[in-house]
Amino acid sequence: MKTIRNKFALLAIVIAGLTTAYAQDPLPSWNDGKAKQSIVEFVAKVTKEGSPDFVPAPERIATFDNDGTLWAEQPVPVQLFFALDRVKALAPQHPEWKTKEPFASLLKGDLKTALAGGDHALLEIIMATHAGMTTAEFEQIVKDWLATAKHPKFKKPYNACVYQPMIELLAYLRANGVKTFIVSGGGIEFMRPWAEKAYGIPPEQVVGSSIKTKFEMRDGKPVLLRLPEINFIDDKAGKPVGINQHIGRRPVMAFGNSDGDRQMLEYTQGGSGARFMLLVLHDDAAREYAYGPAKGLPDVKLGTFTPALYEQTKKDGWTVVSMKDDWKTIFAFENK
Amino acid sequence: MKTIRNKFALLAIVIAGLTTAYAQDPLPSWNDGKAKQSIVEFVAKVTKEGSPDFVPAPERIATFDNDGTLWAEQPVPVQLFFALDRVKALAPQHPEWKTKEPFASLLKGDLKTALAGGDHALLEIIMATHAGMTTAEFEQIVKDWLATAKHPKFKKPYNACVYQPMIELLAYLRANGVKTFIVSGGGIEFMRPWAEKAYGIPPEQVVGSSIKTKFEMRDGKPVLLRLPEINFIDDKAGKPVGINQHIGRRPVMAFGNSDGDRQMLEYTQGGSGARFMLLVLHDDAAREYAYGPAKGLPDVKLGTFTPALYEQTKKDGWTVVSMKDDWKTIFAFENK
Repeated sequence: MKTIRNKFALLAIVIAGLTTAYAQDPLPSWNDGKAKQSIVEFVAKVTKEGSPDFVPAPERIATFDNDGTLWAEQPVPVQLFFALDRVKALAPQHPEWKTKEPFASLLKGDLKTALAGGDHALLEIIMATHAGMTTAEFEQIVKDWLATAKHPKFKKPYNACVYQPMIELLAYLRANGVKTFIVSGGGIEFMRPWAEKAYGIPPEQVVGSSIKTKFEMRDGKPVLLRLPEINFIDDKAGKPVGINQHIGRRPVMAFGNSDGDRQMLEYTQGGSGARFMLLVLHDDAAREYAYGPAKGLPDVKLGTFTPALYEQTKKDGWTVVSMKDDWKTIFAFENK
Repeated sequence: MKTIRNKFALLAIVIAGLTTAYAQDPLPSWNDGKAKQSIVEFVAKVTKEGSPDFVPAPERIATFDNDGTLWAEQPVPVQLFFALDRVKALAPQHPEWKTKEPFASLLKGDLKTALAGGDHALLEIIMATHAGMTTAEFEQIVKDWLATAKHPKFKKPYNACVYQPMIELLAYLRANGVKTFIVSGGGIEFMRPWAEKAYGIPPEQVVGSSIKTKFEMRDGKPVLLRLPEINFIDDKAGKPVGINQHIGRRPVMAFGNSDGDRQMLEYTQGGSGARFMLLVLHDDAAREYAYGPAKGLPDVKLGTFTPALYEQTKKDGWTVVSMKDDWKTIFAFENK
């Protein structure tokens, strides 16, 4: 009897120890440091009833950029790889593409010449590959592509190239009553098919860029047809607009990694009461990528973190995460 | 000891009885009948694990029209009363309105002449009263107006003129893991300031018509300015578009009351698996209003339930609620 009682006592101590360890480290992939500490302290003060910074649960809204904040966006954003693969898949139905830019260069594998046409070329590629089907068909196309495509550097499916520290952060915030949203320049219907599984963020909490759709009856079935016409660009000054349109509340926390997120963080900070703004700095060429050009890091075309933005983080008290120093693990597959 | 045990046994029976009574009648303002039965049976089968009609909780999406479905929309939709009161409040700043239609007639109290200009006149009224301020300022204007304005027939604040049976239905669905959304032709930012309190529906679950907004810095503060330009009309064929844009899933249940809801119900029904579609028929002139022109009820300009729509409910198996027969109570204030 005594032995059994002792065993239970021991078990209770072990469980209590584990629980405490977990409670003390909800973010195991984050190194101890200012970034991690700023997050944990903010969450503690806004969730503590009676605290002057307390925020009622319904108002605990956190918005996350996707490309470069939740998953890798180099050497080019994932959705562009998707579009390029779609151009190849659709080429047999478009013999005219052999001589028509930007498709001709793309099909020859010359991405640089194809994209030399700038926004107009990009738009042509997006419309040719993202419109002309129903929303249900497009969802299936995205799912099928994700099931086979691999990231060129990491040789893993793209939805495995999500940042483990951010996955933990999303779960930690939700455990503290925070409602997590994606607010991305990427296509809303490109993200929704996999965001729930990858991030625990349901389709109705994904905000993104979109093309127009049209309701119609097709063979007696009601469908939404995707039209080759821009509806909304959820980037830069568009992000606060998208947040207001979809969420209708000013976020309490906002997370990004580039100049495209500046206005979202400014809008978040502009609310009354406690606010938290964070930017991820990609400074780990070995485990992921290093780009800025802030802090003398290499310049890039998409996903830039400019020196001016870096200055703003200091002036406005935004947290900057150094991937190299603040993240113990970047990808879950590193540890396998 | 025996007495105490008996008391506990008695208490257990009483509690069990209360629990059963509640479980048997989650919708006390609904009369027993086909409409109520169809709702309860549908919820039972989609929430029962192992049932062929089981729907996992994240996919349990229900969309509700607002005007005429959740609150009264006669003699004219509430938002129009708001716009008219705003025209009066703003008139001193607009001396030109004295001679300019539709404002001149409005200010004389001649609603009929003012609205004779049709959609164009309505649009002019909306833009003059809904744009030109920040989103935060507009929210406050709506709240201030609701705090004092009264419904002309019921002499109660408009947000007290919500249908008690639908309030119970919303709570009942949420208790069964259903996520409830508003999908209304009304203004998204006109509904959000009060929908959470009135319906338990948070701002991020309100879909509606909208005007464009623009992010800008005003006196160093980041704000969203409301622009006099239509962004989206969430009515008729626009409702499935709005649902896809905001929710990204096809609803499992949809509730409306007029021809403006037809496509939302069709889109809902078009999904695979069990679906539930319901329309409220306003046939109670004594307690609320009677209008159709379905079933020989009086015709109206806004909120029509046509005979063709009524035929469709029979063909497609949609539930029709007779306010007169199916609702024991319409407004909570009736019982006070």
